[in-house]
Amino acid sequence: MSSETQARRIVLAARPQGEPKNTDFRLEGFAVPAPGPGQVLLKTRFLSLDPYMRGRMNDSKSYAPSVALNDPMVGEVVAEVVDSQLDGFARGEHVLAHLGWVSHGLSDGKGLRKIDADQAPLQSYLGVLGMPGFTAYAGLREIGKPRAGETVVVAAASGPVGSLVGQLAQRAGARAVGIAGGARKCQFVKDVLGFDAVLDHRAEDFPAALAAACPDGIDVYFENVGGAVWQAVFPLLNPFGRVPVCGLIADYNGSPALPDGISVPALMRGILTRSLSIRGFINYDLDTLFPDFLAEVGAGVRDGSVLHREDIVDGLENAPQAFIGLLKGSNFGKLLVKVAD
Amino acid sequence: MSSETQARRIVLAARPQGEPKNTDFRLEGFAVPAPGPGQVLLKTRFLSLDPYMRGRMNDSKSYAPSVALNDPMVGEVVAEVVDSQLDGFARGEHVLAHLGWVSHGLSDGKGLRKIDADQAPLQSYLGVLGMPGFTAYAGLREIGKPRAGETVVVAAASGPVGSLVGQLAQRAGARAVGIAGGARKCQFVKDVLGFDAVLDHRAEDFPAALAAACPDGIDVYFENVGGAVWQAVFPLLNPFGRVPVCGLIADYNGSPALPDGISVPALMRGILTRSLSIRGFINYDLDTLFPDFLAEVGAGVRDGSVLHREDIVDGLENAPQAFIGLLKGSNFGKLLVKVAD
Repeated sequence: MSSETQARRIVLAARPQGEPKNTDFRLEGFAVPAPGPGQVLLKTRFLSLDPYMRGRMNDSKSYAPSVALNDPMVGEVVAEVVDSQLDGFARGEHVLAHLGWVSHGLSDGKGLRKIDADQAPLQSYLGVLGMPGFTAYAGLREIGKPRAGETVVVAAASGPVGSLVGQLAQRAGARAVGIAGGARKCQFVKDVLGFDAVLDHRAEDFPAALAAACPDGIDVYFENVGGAVWQAVFPLLNPFGRVPVCGLIADYNGSPALPDGISVPALMRGILTRSLSIRGFINYDLDTLFPDFLAEVGAGVRDGSVLHREDIVDGLENAPQAFIGLLKGSNFGKLLVKVAD
Repeated sequence: MSSETQARRIVLAARPQGEPKNTDFRLEGFAVPAPGPGQVLLKTRFLSLDPYMRGRMNDSKSYAPSVALNDPMVGEVVAEVVDSQLDGFARGEHVLAHLGWVSHGLSDGKGLRKIDADQAPLQSYLGVLGMPGFTAYAGLREIGKPRAGETVVVAAASGPVGSLVGQLAQRAGARAVGIAGGARKCQFVKDVLGFDAVLDHRAEDFPAALAAACPDGIDVYFENVGGAVWQAVFPLLNPFGRVPVCGLIADYNGSPALPDGISVPALMRGILTRSLSIRGFINYDLDTLFPDFLAEVGAGVRDGSVLHREDIVDGLENAPQAFIGLLKGSNFGKLLVKVAD
């Protein structure tokens, strides 16, 4: 039995127009529920904050349903089993669960995945060894397919997807060019992660700098930001270029008008004349690759050859502000909320 | 030796702005050349007119070089060997050749492909058994991958690419929905080719009619037109939809502004949220599939199970007007010019 009686959750208080505000979220208390037969009580240790959550705050069709008003925000957590009336789950075990922005929750075991704290730090199962890492791995392996000597470009390069994209591209013998926001992140991408080149998308002359950093053009662009970066990348894509699309964070708060942007006919003409391939995916489209991912990237994390960075915020009550910052690129590394020790 | 001494050719007289005009072309006479050692003299029987030629008239980068001013227009022909000083080619044999809009030309044999008039009519090697047919076959097999029960949409459905796309989709067990311009073409697509549904893109309510004709959405859109049709198709694409892009004829004369059109951010958002795949290709990207194509579609043409329609214009001098009409959809079936009997 858990000794705690008071749980907390963060619910969607209002649907944001453009950038979310603190008042779009509400922190609520509720009684820690008791598990019935066939249930476990989970206590959240870490909550993952990810850009896709912005889409769930809208009342529009997407690949997943919206969060209803006054319902808890959705999200993946690392949790500890604190009470179990379900065979196969014992108190003290750790699991990955889609529990949401909550401190405690019940589960019937469906969709839970046990994780091993001895193999890697618990929170890494939400980052480099979790959904973001797998997104990088699966998108490159299935769609990007970098080859030796090619140029691979990725934005948000200090983040959990981008940082792994660049490192995996280099393992395939390709040149990794990262894009990040601000000098600190750029320095990390170049000096710590070891990308071949890095560019600051906030620089005045970003499109020209990108072209200069890719003298042989771009063969793979791993799209996770959209917006002005995509506009700068598109003209540089080589014939037979591949564009896995896993996110468009720049557009999530609404699409600002882009001056001198490419048009849809120009985009289609480029796709035709350069035999480009553009494919959207979400990680679970490709989940048959998950065991390969865990083996390959897990080994790299354990032996230190795969680097990653985490940005851990303390306390569930700080999740809204951290999430608002995430959409502006304020985080530095995989953004996590430590909900309980 | 050929008994003719006077040859003719059509050259690019001026680069068109928007729609080509007759004055952008010039008919010229020249002396029939004599083959030197290692050469053959070819006499054109049929010239193929194809939308891609519009792109070659521009002075802009594409997947193939532009036609230079005062040079003959490029194009593929069925030709007869009328004189040969090249081992392996005999007078009276027929070949496919990239000879251009000319009545006669020399070749060193490179790029020539012998064709057999006993297997299929000569001109069919420029249509259903040639580049357009192979474009349909390769794009569907490699990118579209229609499955039983799916909906496949193609425009220019009475044309050489579209008509085969629909028939091959049905062979795969999919539902074929064609788009064509005008009642005559629509009737042909439905009643002769046997598509499951057909729509007139000139109809006032085309987007609504398309949606009604695709109650289960669209799984494969074989893109050969662009423009307003693409705008109407895009919202109907199902999750995991595939879009082989082989042409954009509606845009070749310049891209008219499309009212209420989708934007690039909306397009990218659709690609992301619906896991769409959009891939441009040109037939020779996929030429390893050519033997399979010839075997499969050739058998269908011979046994009458693959239907196709040709629109044959008489006389090289009429090629410019026929080509101008092609870009407006005036032809009805694969457009060919009979250059000599």
